Amino acid sequence: MTLLDKLQIELPSWAFGNSGTRFKVFGTPGTPRTIEEKIADAATVHRFTGLAPVVALHIPWDRVDDYRALRRHAADHGVRLGTINSNTFQDDDYKFGSLTHTDKAVRQKAIDHHLECIDIMAATGSRDLKIWLADGTNYPGQGDIRGRQDRLAESLAAIYQHIGEGQRLVLEYKFFEPAMYMTDVPDWGTAYAQVTALGERAVVCLDTGHHAPGTNIEFIVAQLLRLGKLGSFDFNSRFYADDDLIVGAADPFQLFRIMFEVIRGGGLDESSPVALMLDQCHNVEAKIPGQIRSVLNVQEMTARAHAVDTDALAVAQETGDVLGANAIFMDAFYTDIRPALAQWRTERGLPADPMAAFAESGYQDTINAERVGGTQSSWGA
Amino acid sequence: MTLLDKLQIELPSWAFGNSGTRFKVFGTPGTPRTIEEKIADAATVHRFTGLAPVVALHIPWDRVDDYRALRRHAADHGVRLGTINSNTFQDDDYKFGSLTHTDKAVRQKAIDHHLECIDIMAATGSRDLKIWLADGTNYPGQGDIRGRQDRLAESLAAIYQHIGEGQRLVLEYKFFEPAMYMTDVPDWGTAYAQVTALGERAVVCLDTGHHAPGTNIEFIVAQLLRLGKLGSFDFNSRFYADDDLIVGAADPFQLFRIMFEVIRGGGLDESSPVALMLDQCHNVEAKIPGQIRSVLNVQEMTARAHAVDTDALAVAQETGDVLGANAIFMDAFYTDIRPALAQWRTERGLPADPMAAFAESGYQDTINAERVGGTQSSWGA
Amino acid sequence: MTLLDKLQIELPSWAFGNSGTRFKVFGTPGTPRTIEEKIADAATVHRFTGLAPVVALHIPWDRVDDYRALRRHAADHGVRLGTINSNTFQDDDYKFGSLTHTDKAVRQKAIDHHLECIDIMAATGSRDLKIWLADGTNYPGQGDIRGRQDRLAESLAAIYQHIGEGQRLVLEYKFFEPAMYMTDVPDWGTAYAQVTALGERAVVCLDTGHHAPGTNIEFIVAQLLRLGKLGSFDFNSRFYADDDLIVGAADPFQLFRIMFEVIRGGGLDESSPVALMLDQCHNVEAKIPGQIRSVLNVQEMTARAHAVDTDALAVAQETGDVLGANAIFMDAFYTDIRPALAQWRTERGLPADPMAAFAESGYQDTINAERVGGTQSSWGA
Amino acid sequence: MTLLDKLQIELPSWAFGNSGTRFKVFGTPGTPRTIEEKIADAATVHRFTGLAPVVALHIPWDRVDDYRALRRHAADHGVRLGTINSNTFQDDDYKFGSLTHTDKAVRQKAIDHHLECIDIMAATGSRDLKIWLADGTNYPGQGDIRGRQDRLAESLAAIYQHIGEGQRLVLEYKFFEPAMYMTDVPDWGTAYAQVTALGERAVVCLDTGHHAPGTNIEFIVAQLLRLGKLGSFDFNSRFYADDDLIVGAADPFQLFRIMFEVIRGGGLDESSPVALMLDQCHNVEAKIPGQIRSVLNVQEMTARAHAVDTDALAVAQETGDVLGANAIFMDAFYTDIRPALAQWRTERGLPADPMAAFAESGYQDTINAERVGGTQSSWGA
Repeated sequence: MTLLDKLQIELPSWAFGNSGTRFKVFGTPGTPRTIEEKIADAATVHRFTGLAPVVALHIPWDRVDDYRALRRHAADHGVRLGTINSNTFQDDDYKFGSLTHTDKAVRQKAIDHHLECIDIMAATGSRDLKIWLADGTNYPGQGDIRGRQDRLAESLAAIYQHIGEGQRLVLEYKFFEPAMYMTDVPDWGTAYAQVTALGERAVVCLDTGHHAPGTNIEFIVAQLLRLGKLGSFDFNSRFYADDDLIVGAADPFQLFRIMFEVIRGGGLDESSPVALMLDQCHNVEAKIPGQIRSVLNVQEMTARAHAVDTDALAVAQETGDVLGANAIFMDAFYTDIRPALAQWRTERGLPADPMAAFAESGYQDTINAERVGGTQSSWGA
Repeated sequence: MTLLDKLQIELPSWAFGNSGTRFKVFGTPGTPRTIEEKIADAATVHRFTGLAPVVALHIPWDRVDDYRALRRHAADHGVRLGTINSNTFQDDDYKFGSLTHTDKAVRQKAIDHHLECIDIMAATGSRDLKIWLADGTNYPGQGDIRGRQDRLAESLAAIYQHIGEGQRLVLEYKFFEPAMYMTDVPDWGTAYAQVTALGERAVVCLDTGHHAPGTNIEFIVAQLLRLGKLGSFDFNSRFYADDDLIVGAADPFQLFRIMFEVIRGGGLDESSPVALMLDQCHNVEAKIPGQIRSVLNVQEMTARAHAVDTDALAVAQETGDVLGANAIFMDAFYTDIRPALAQWRTERGLPADPMAAFAESGYQDTINAERVGGTQSSWGA
Repeated sequence: MTLLDKLQIELPSWAFGNSGTRFKVFGTPGTPRTIEEKIADAATVHRFTGLAPVVALHIPWDRVDDYRALRRHAADHGVRLGTINSNTFQDDDYKFGSLTHTDKAVRQKAIDHHLECIDIMAATGSRDLKIWLADGTNYPGQGDIRGRQDRLAESLAAIYQHIGEGQRLVLEYKFFEPAMYMTDVPDWGTAYAQVTALGERAVVCLDTGHHAPGTNIEFIVAQLLRLGKLGSFDFNSRFYADDDLIVGAADPFQLFRIMFEVIRGGGLDESSPVALMLDQCHNVEAKIPGQIRSVLNVQEMTARAHAVDTDALAVAQETGDVLGANAIFMDAFYTDIRPALAQWRTERGLPADPMAAFAESGYQDTINAERVGGTQSSWGA
Repeated sequence: MTLLDKLQIELPSWAFGNSGTRFKVFGTPGTPRTIEEKIADAATVHRFTGLAPVVALHIPWDRVDDYRALRRHAADHGVRLGTINSNTFQDDDYKFGSLTHTDKAVRQKAIDHHLECIDIMAATGSRDLKIWLADGTNYPGQGDIRGRQDRLAESLAAIYQHIGEGQRLVLEYKFFEPAMYMTDVPDWGTAYAQVTALGERAVVCLDTGHHAPGTNIEFIVAQLLRLGKLGSFDFNSRFYADDDLIVGAADPFQLFRIMFEVIRGGGLDESSPVALMLDQCHNVEAKIPGQIRSVLNVQEMTARAHAVDTDALAVAQETGDVLGANAIFMDAFYTDIRPALAQWRTERGLPADPMAAFAESGYQDTINAERVGGTQSSWGA
């Protein structure tokens, strides 16, 4: 299982804060008040799984005075800082757009925010600047689709020229929400066209919840890998919209198919730059075990996908043996890999059952008791 | 245009408060702080359009000490109080359900909330208690689908026995959100089965944004009218999910088809009990003119639908003249009815162009200046 | 595994004939020319799996002179005749509808066809008359939605009065296709309202491919079982529309959830009248092993669903343990039940691996050699 | 209305033959038996509308011995031959793919078919070779997604090198059908990536029915025009899948928005190479008037889109006046342009009401009487 030893999953700091829907955000005891506490929680996920050594930051939610100190704090907890995620959707100035805004001053403000993020990357040692834009419009006629796209290209170019050697600009696309008629980067095609225009260090982020109903996501994975433009994943799962549920919870077979194409396309090769990140929104489930479950699901489906007998599959595919090929593929999905993974963990000094081990560890009780007072972190702060 | 004289649209009080998405709620100057100010704004919509003489309340958002005084306040502004909407989705107790909760105490709390609403109805003179439930689950296995449905039936029955003569329990269905795997009243079939089990005074509310992609909504309108169970509408429009946009903004032809079936099924007859209510969520557009636009759109599509030459249509339908029938139908949709509606307004002492008249009236400037301090109303308060 | 011993799946005769898409129907060697050959193939599926002792007929595709002889032919092959499926979509008279047609003569013709089917049921010993209607319209205005629904009710009532003791009228719904704007029985709510109006012997058929994108099918299963109106399934799977793929191929976890609700609602109880039928359309895969794969998938997901620790699940559900409940549910799905099923088969004298056993049996070669000349069966004949 | 004078719509020859669904194809009197008769019908559409001077051919359906004679036949009828559409989906060899097939011999056969089409283009004077592929798979594992994509690129390159000066290879994408799990060109992003790799003379065809539910098609139009890669349209409309209904029938407002972006992006400029083609499938409506209705709908929505006050719109867009911008946009949509179009026709010697004029012309009766015997054209021949 050497491939599994390479599997590293990046956790989003905000997954440990409160989040929810427009109807209600439920707070829970023990929720972090600071980025330092979020990192402690993320490190706990890694300690129990061995899978999640990287924590992504969100600016300004995770803004601190001293990022180098934060970097040491992470190292002290056994993890490192990862992707820097920008935010241009929570300021009144951005009501009608950020990088696409008709007002040059607003665009410049949004560009400057990204330059701040790039500065932070230098301090945190982060490789990736991830840009998800809420830009878009709610009503036909509200904005000029073409003009917005042109301004987007211009703004991205202004940011891109500050992306250093060994760094990447990662552009995320999203089908809808919060914009309800048109988003400015709605699909992989748009993200691909934009990053291709920028240059080699610009790549695409695929969030598994950001597609139209019925979209074959593994096809996009295969295609972006083929084109050399798959930068990273935001893993989560959904039944309807951008539900941001636990990874693999809605359709484990889809996760299996996605990981199969990741492997097929070299996304887990030694030299692969593809970042596997989670992006969930814990609404009703416990946060830390919710993340543990997600990283275990990614690992499990990666292991099942890796178990496909690709030689036999290739023969069946080439001979038009539809049922045979499908059977080979499904056999790997249906085979219970969990005992092997428990052994993999035990061999590495990890708990065989991370969910149970966490529950028994008392960590949650400790933070419930300690984290009293202050303001719990959420999307708003 | 006698049919148009019957057209009355109910405005939701909360449309005048701030609302938005999980990402950001943008506040605007002049936003009401109290239900009295919301009523004043709603009455303004009516004053400029002659279409919206009723204001729906949401409890607890619009809770006051003296509902009879509120009723007089409304009357003083030329409108009356309408549907009472309950709320069982913003209390921590309801995290795992309200009327469907496994805990009998929580169910009773939710039932009691509805009994409070019924008490309010007596004071406000309201006919309808509308129940939209956020109940549902996010993960397979999280809840017992069947048990939840049984408990829902039991809870609704407990509420229904307090619904008086001349009152109605109106049950709304919703495809998803905030629940992401299963909602307890996901479709019209479930709402219909539940209200049929209750009795004659229980009916269904159809929110035009609460369906699966591609659903033929006018069919459901026709079917519920046929079954005598269409209680009310929550009008809005959507491109993707429950976008809560201005009515008719996303697909005016769909609104036309819906209003055609409303008329066809007797929903605008003198004796019809069908309530036409709006339910929007103003995220980026101005609130009062947003409501004016919506009621005008309903009126306009009603007028166009009413203009269909139904005699000629019937002949074409019966003779299998596909293109002829469609042409008769489309001709009414394509004919510009706006001049006739301007005249209808002028004849009744209303401004020919309500949008322009409101803009020129100075009302917005006045409330912007007056409504300073306090807490702007929103979904949270 | 007593529950598994009760599992009986009904095979559609037409699955053994040629079928495909509007673009192309690919013929294959060995395809049956007659209903007798179809029954022989269906019996072969049963011989290798022990799961499929019933064959559904489609009239007029399977029309014969002597149905009692056909019944004996089936018995000789170790299977029995099941559901009679009517067909009102391949005659020019039905271009604009059958049971809903504006022309009384066409409606009567369609009613008479169903009476013929009921006569056949007497001869074949079938319990169920299944009605799937292609009725609907392609363009807004083309038909009168309400009038069509009223005529449907009247026509169904005319048929229902001939449904004898111990027989059932089973009404199937479908979201779209071949009608592209509106189908007359588009959803479970409509089917439920129509069969409820008929009486106790009228029930609903749920085809797993006949829903809007994102529809929670297991909810409908639970609801129809609760209402006592789930008559039968048409199992298949789909990624997009009514793709009619191998059961469980697109989303095995969904099949698991559906079977869990079937069991939960008593659909596999000794006394349950629910019929489990397949309805696939083999386009590119081999037909007989395609059916074997489907019945095995149903069995496997039934076994996994049956393995859910429902006592532990109930506790987790009642205590709001979201992750715990989900974990119990998923554990059953993820556990490899196939060795146990192989043993179940061996104990009953069946091949441990039915797919391999069929491949080695030489049956396909035999029919390829024998079935030369004549006209291969298809949807058209 | 100079822009309208530039509007030219290309008619597909196969729209005049029989077509339908996998359930039934209804034949009609007067249906052409030959390509010459199809051209006569297409020319009739042009004679009554002045909008449709070009007829697209489909090979092999429209294969003739002498294409130069066919070209003269078209000219004699007042129209010219347009796009050549290839067909690699109705031959048994293509069951598992054509340009993507694992078997080099099959790929070469499919390439050779396209070279034949290019030869035909020389004779017919056609500019465009349009490639729509049915290639794809029905089951996960059936094919190697990545390998298929690589083979597609290789096959297209082999074809492209034969595309001459002034000619174009136009690649069409489709979300699904007939492939039910994965199509090899499922979205505009894939088509764009493939044609960009080929070169300047390779462009994309956008069929308005080939997208996932909810896709914002006008965004794609704007984007492809911006990237210089919008080659042509296949216009039709849909409620659910690839319904192939009359253009604009399902959502006239969407057609308006699409045409607005076409104009905005220069797609109707003098120098624009964008081809506007119809692609419908007449199932229940009359064929010739069905085409007349479609071209009139395109014209009408183009005229309404052209009437948008773009100067005022730009001001509203730049000032964040959401309701104002939307109102300007909608005003053009809601204004009845039909009288102006009737006048436009009259001024050019065309009938004011083409539908009525065709009905009165007796053309249908004539062809009904003349076209007796022979085999009616359909997708199969």
